[in-house]
Amino acid sequence: MDNIKTFISNALKEDIGPGDLTTEALVPPDVEGKAELIAKEPLIIAGIEAAREVFKQVDPRTSVTANCADGHELTSGTVIASISGKLASLLTAERVALNFLQRLSGVATLTRQYVNGIEGTKARIVDTRKTTPGLRTLEKYAVRIGGGKNHRFGLFDGILIKDNHIAAVGSLIEAVKRAREKAPHTLKIEVETENLDQVREAISAGAGIIMLDNMDIETMKEAVRVINGKALIEASGGINLNNVRQVAETGVDLISVGAITHSARSMDISMEITNA
Amino acid sequence: MDNIKTFISNALKEDIGPGDLTTEALVPPDVEGKAELIAKEPLIIAGIEAAREVFKQVDPRTSVTANCADGHELTSGTVIASISGKLASLLTAERVALNFLQRLSGVATLTRQYVNGIEGTKARIVDTRKTTPGLRTLEKYAVRIGGGKNHRFGLFDGILIKDNHIAAVGSLIEAVKRAREKAPHTLKIEVETENLDQVREAISAGAGIIMLDNMDIETMKEAVRVINGKALIEASGGINLNNVRQVAETGVDLISVGAITHSARSMDISMEITNA
Amino acid sequence: MDNIKTFISNALKEDIGPGDLTTEALVPPDVEGKAELIAKEPLIIAGIEAAREVFKQVDPRTSVTANCADGHELTSGTVIASISGKLASLLTAERVALNFLQRLSGVATLTRQYVNGIEGTKARIVDTRKTTPGLRTLEKYAVRIGGGKNHRFGLFDGILIKDNHIAAVGSLIEAVKRAREKAPHTLKIEVETENLDQVREAISAGAGIIMLDNMDIETMKEAVRVINGKALIEASGGINLNNVRQVAETGVDLISVGAITHSARSMDISMEITNA
Amino acid sequence: MDNIKTFISNALKEDIGPGDLTTEALVPPDVEGKAELIAKEPLIIAGIEAAREVFKQVDPRTSVTANCADGHELTSGTVIASISGKLASLLTAERVALNFLQRLSGVATLTRQYVNGIEGTKARIVDTRKTTPGLRTLEKYAVRIGGGKNHRFGLFDGILIKDNHIAAVGSLIEAVKRAREKAPHTLKIEVETENLDQVREAISAGAGIIMLDNMDIETMKEAVRVINGKALIEASGGINLNNVRQVAETGVDLISVGAITHSARSMDISMEITNA
Amino acid sequence: MDNIKTFISNALKEDIGPGDLTTEALVPPDVEGKAELIAKEPLIIAGIEAAREVFKQVDPRTSVTANCADGHELTSGTVIASISGKLASLLTAERVALNFLQRLSGVATLTRQYVNGIEGTKARIVDTRKTTPGLRTLEKYAVRIGGGKNHRFGLFDGILIKDNHIAAVGSLIEAVKRAREKAPHTLKIEVETENLDQVREAISAGAGIIMLDNMDIETMKEAVRVINGKALIEASGGINLNNVRQVAETGVDLISVGAITHSARSMDISMEITNA
Amino acid sequence: MDNIKTFISNALKEDIGPGDLTTEALVPPDVEGKAELIAKEPLIIAGIEAAREVFKQVDPRTSVTANCADGHELTSGTVIASISGKLASLLTAERVALNFLQRLSGVATLTRQYVNGIEGTKARIVDTRKTTPGLRTLEKYAVRIGGGKNHRFGLFDGILIKDNHIAAVGSLIEAVKRAREKAPHTLKIEVETENLDQVREAISAGAGIIMLDNMDIETMKEAVRVINGKALIEASGGINLNNVRQVAETGVDLISVGAITHSARSMDISMEITNA
Repeated sequence: MDNIKTFISNALKEDIGPGDLTTEALVPPDVEGKAELIAKEPLIIAGIEAAREVFKQVDPRTSVTANCADGHELTSGTVIASISGKLASLLTAERVALNFLQRLSGVATLTRQYVNGIEGTKARIVDTRKTTPGLRTLEKYAVRIGGGKNHRFGLFDGILIKDNHIAAVGSLIEAVKRAREKAPHTLKIEVETENLDQVREAISAGAGIIMLDNMDIETMKEAVRVINGKALIEASGGINLNNVRQVAETGVDLISVGAITHSARSMDISMEITNA
Repeated sequence: MDNIKTFISNALKEDIGPGDLTTEALVPPDVEGKAELIAKEPLIIAGIEAAREVFKQVDPRTSVTANCADGHELTSGTVIASISGKLASLLTAERVALNFLQRLSGVATLTRQYVNGIEGTKARIVDTRKTTPGLRTLEKYAVRIGGGKNHRFGLFDGILIKDNHIAAVGSLIEAVKRAREKAPHTLKIEVETENLDQVREAISAGAGIIMLDNMDIETMKEAVRVINGKALIEASGGINLNNVRQVAETGVDLISVGAITHSARSMDISMEITNA
Repeated sequence: MDNIKTFISNALKEDIGPGDLTTEALVPPDVEGKAELIAKEPLIIAGIEAAREVFKQVDPRTSVTANCADGHELTSGTVIASISGKLASLLTAERVALNFLQRLSGVATLTRQYVNGIEGTKARIVDTRKTTPGLRTLEKYAVRIGGGKNHRFGLFDGILIKDNHIAAVGSLIEAVKRAREKAPHTLKIEVETENLDQVREAISAGAGIIMLDNMDIETMKEAVRVINGKALIEASGGINLNNVRQVAETGVDLISVGAITHSARSMDISMEITNA
Repeated sequence: MDNIKTFISNALKEDIGPGDLTTEALVPPDVEGKAELIAKEPLIIAGIEAAREVFKQVDPRTSVTANCADGHELTSGTVIASISGKLASLLTAERVALNFLQRLSGVATLTRQYVNGIEGTKARIVDTRKTTPGLRTLEKYAVRIGGGKNHRFGLFDGILIKDNHIAAVGSLIEAVKRAREKAPHTLKIEVETENLDQVREAISAGAGIIMLDNMDIETMKEAVRVINGKALIEASGGINLNNVRQVAETGVDLISVGAITHSARSMDISMEITNA
Repeated sequence: MDNIKTFISNALKEDIGPGDLTTEALVPPDVEGKAELIAKEPLIIAGIEAAREVFKQVDPRTSVTANCADGHELTSGTVIASISGKLASLLTAERVALNFLQRLSGVATLTRQYVNGIEGTKARIVDTRKTTPGLRTLEKYAVRIGGGKNHRFGLFDGILIKDNHIAAVGSLIEAVKRAREKAPHTLKIEVETENLDQVREAISAGAGIIMLDNMDIETMKEAVRVINGKALIEASGGINLNNVRQVAETGVDLISVGAITHSARSMDISMEITNA
Repeated sequence: MDNIKTFISNALKEDIGPGDLTTEALVPPDVEGKAELIAKEPLIIAGIEAAREVFKQVDPRTSVTANCADGHELTSGTVIASISGKLASLLTAERVALNFLQRLSGVATLTRQYVNGIEGTKARIVDTRKTTPGLRTLEKYAVRIGGGKNHRFGLFDGILIKDNHIAAVGSLIEAVKRAREKAPHTLKIEVETENLDQVREAISAGAGIIMLDNMDIETMKEAVRVINGKALIEASGGINLNNVRQVAETGVDLISVGAITHSARSMDISMEITNA
């Protein structure tokens, strides 16, 4: 949470800099005010605590009362939270608070669509490292809120051997062997495969997770049959809302989707002053 | 540039943390390598210097040679840049470099679509403060690369009197008066208006810029006629690629579009090792 | 305010470093104490909140009760504020709190002298970027407290085309044209002029503000006549308490004075323990 | 030096923020330029390295060639340094570089006046903790450049028992005793005295340095006679250029003057482009 | 490496603060010097790059030539590295450079003793989170240099269910179930067990790693028999140089030892000026 | 204290990173819990406030009630403090809190052994700059808690002329002279001596403190006789628990021991959940 506070603090510095000229010129610092955050379209809400932190950093006297919790599905027009405090503080905080809330709700909403798309299968939607620089902790939180599951956080907490690593080492078997020797014993070794031969190699090398990268549905089905429970199976590449159910029905355990973090559009949310 | 370097440094810490376990386990630190950054779909490229900075921060010995410049329109398959250095360093930097490049190119590409949409009119596409927290400097740069123009950077370098400000003050005239008294004399006063009455009030108050917020096309045309050169005119709200030309043809000077920063999807760009 | 808190925190680190050896050796940490901040000469007080923040950062349990507000004109001997808390904390915070208060009151007091000097004219005293490194926000605040008005905060929130810029571009007209094309539309373009020819050029180029740099009184009067309301007029250079009224009476709108921030002497203010 | 680099970096952020709008709009980034820093009045120069660091941080490609060294006495018109590099970089760095140079030269010049005032006596001019927040290291450097000597840097590297400490402890003897028991053995104990009785008490308590606070010349002479070499003697309070020689001639070892840091006026120094 | 650079920078600030008074007073800044870092007792060297970074941060002109590499076993009197540069810079950097080198070599040397103690068995020595605050990255590096293997870096990159977690959840089975549901699929689940019943429970729950906490040798042997390859086995608690071989011979895979980081004594290493 | 808070914050970031996976997966965030910190061997406790700060930073709602004060001698089994709050917060904070407490208690306990070893003599145990990088303030605090006295904090608050400085300058007399001329007058000049000739030279040069470096007991006795109260005397080098009393009985004033900070082993302290 500490890193997030610093990140929010930097976002506020970026926007406010030496001061909010308009509000300072127009609104006396002691006038009280009330406002509401309102969903302007159907969405899965995420980021209420981040928005609260924005208001609190601008002015610790501001009070934020949430009417719902992260993860709730809201209809258009729902009041997300009521805010009261110095009117000037509400106005100064508005844009940055909304920027966090709109983006995180965008991630949660898109994730939920993928999760709904595979309902009833055993597969899980997982995220990737294709996140907005600096926002990874929050975006991965929004993925969980949307019903997804997190893949590794970064390079430091998971082993994922990709084609470039295999090429650098010379063979998949040797790559897995080196990873076992040097990496912490607490991590499962994941290997990216592009065809059934590599899948078989990965099994014999004792990989803990096998990623099926950009395979067609039929090949995925065959891969699931070949692996036969000897490793977790992750589908990746080219997956969208149109084909995600087909992918899930092949029997894979995990489906990773970069778009849920890198291409979610911001949800429409606004702040309205209710008593100025 | 200093803030951007710090931001990139934080993005790298977020991803690498205490170390790139996979690469450290597999790739000896002294092996040399080459790679290419490749556009996988048509796009306007933006962020080459940010990507270069990522590679340099991971390893100052890495060399990045760009084959094009920010702002160029690339076809799918174009090699954006060639990179050479320690293979391990290239692999560690890859994801963060791409995260910057894909997002900034997304902003530039979407901006260019809006700019192309109003070609031949006198209007200019401008951005908003609806940017990704922490990334404002880079995203506003990408807007310029796409052919757009920047609105104020934050609360500290422009006066924009919105409906909430007017409500807080009591009247539009009084709001403009206070802004003139207290704000730096170097700034033009901008006022948001929602109907023609407010437009007329804004003119009489001597506003320097009048924003037409969520007006329909006919009302905008009338507003342009009423203002008649006495202030700059900015259209805002509900503008998309389908209606942007109609808006431009009303005669407004500026069209602000939040979507170009808050809802641009990432462009598909990949790094391929060419000699592992 | 966040930047100011950090700046105060750094000033305290600079002074206290690993610890206040004298106080730690002599004063038990639990002894309570009271103190007063006292003006030792007539002055305009400024910086009470900064001083309060210093005491609070050293020890959040310290209570600071102000007897006056920033901007008040105080006679020698006036008690500015009463402070109570742990005696050791008061002693440790004393010097840094006074350093802020004395300097900011110095700026406010000198500014007020200039403002009083032009009373009854329409001109306004404005500051410059000749501020103490790191203290700009606070010094510009003290200028406002003294009755002055702020010029742009830095290079990022105003356009001021100086002789060097004109020389670099080739002509004043071209310089203004480029500024209009590239700079945000929310800013007025200011141009520095050294003679009447340049003033006329600036008018024809459509400058929003014309600075008269180091002109004599007669030339200024003529410039005011030539400009005739087509732009704001700012006098600058060589202005002191002896000639500021004459300058104001030429009819300029703004008079910028670097000395109010860069050469204000510290006011004499002391802290006296009242109950040790 | 590292802290100073950070301080300079912050001063640049304060001035430049998201960008130098004027220069970016007008001056192409690749145009080369030359400039000179010129003394516009007689002064003792100080801060050339700080100014160099400013230019280097803005653009590492900038070259700064000094024509004199810190501490030199310059006549009006002297070229302090020649600068060459990208013209845009010179223009962006100008103001902050001058802000450092003007202030530090102000401190050095005023210090030198005090030092010259006591030439031929055995006394030394020393500074105080009445420095500009954040700038202490640089201002104390400027004092040395002016020929003064530094007192303790902060609360952490010296013991100075003031009247408030004595009041808190109950007696001067007890205060010195506690300081000896608890403070590092590497520090001399200094005590502030207000009359001859306290001076005698300080001697008997074994103080290493005795400060004569706000005493008149005759009392100081008597104090010097009473102390008779048993401790270093520091005169403090109410000392100015008119009376400093008299104070020195009483036989004190050290004369501390707050004004040399807290009330030095900035020297007039300008940057002139020589080839734009 | 970036975090380590910052940590070294902070260690230097802690030691040097506003300046190295002794060296500045005595050694002219331009005098050149040479020095050697010398092992004063037999040791495994670790931290040469950290020491180099210290010298470089104090003065980038300093040259450090290592005569050996981290991990080498040195006899007393061996010259570890030769250093040349400004004599003043060498003297200022000496203590902090040695503080890093002595502590890291202490960790590497003690680790090596444990590693040597179990030579020929299949067991591996691993570290714990009982590291010096702030130094974890470097101390875990020194463990690897000594021949040990790293356990998880922190709370974020591994799952270790301890007795307190089990008590909080209610049962070991439920604890493992929750961990599987919520934690990233890339991590093996490790459970701490205190007796054979818990070992059996852990197997049936499908734990990936089973920690035998403070068990006697006979119980460990039985646990190894019971687990029979179904999970990795880690011995922990009460292990020292006297009993580590016995523990290894029970057939466990991993032996974690907190003492190698939290109680290693500093090795005796000194810097000697060779040409002053 | 501010630096310590930052240091603790960094230690927490190092351990927790993006999150405590185990606790987050297993323990609901709202479950309350209680725990005790317990001494598992006889020790001098130090660091209770640092441990409290760790718990508070992880969760400000956590309550820490100490049952003893820093400096107390505890038997094995003593409850040091009782902690209550969210169970998840206690578990997350445990390791870092213990890491501080165990290390600082180690320093205090070892220092106390040295202090007890010289009981009844006039000598004092003092520390050195051989501290853990980053932890100097806390370790020097633990030395005081153990009954030791602090030497200078760093290079900035004391003058210690070592053999290398003398070699650089040419003679001990000249070195002391330069130090007197340039260093602040508030510091005593300390000189390191290796034989009786140097001791005599130091006296004649007027050194305030004379360090006897690595001398045998007989030479120390002779040095004490020669110095005869003209300076403070500090013994240093090769001092351990076996010979420290002999050293103290030579009549030296101070005995500096690097081992109390650089080679103290961590005390055994654990946290036990009492109500899970």
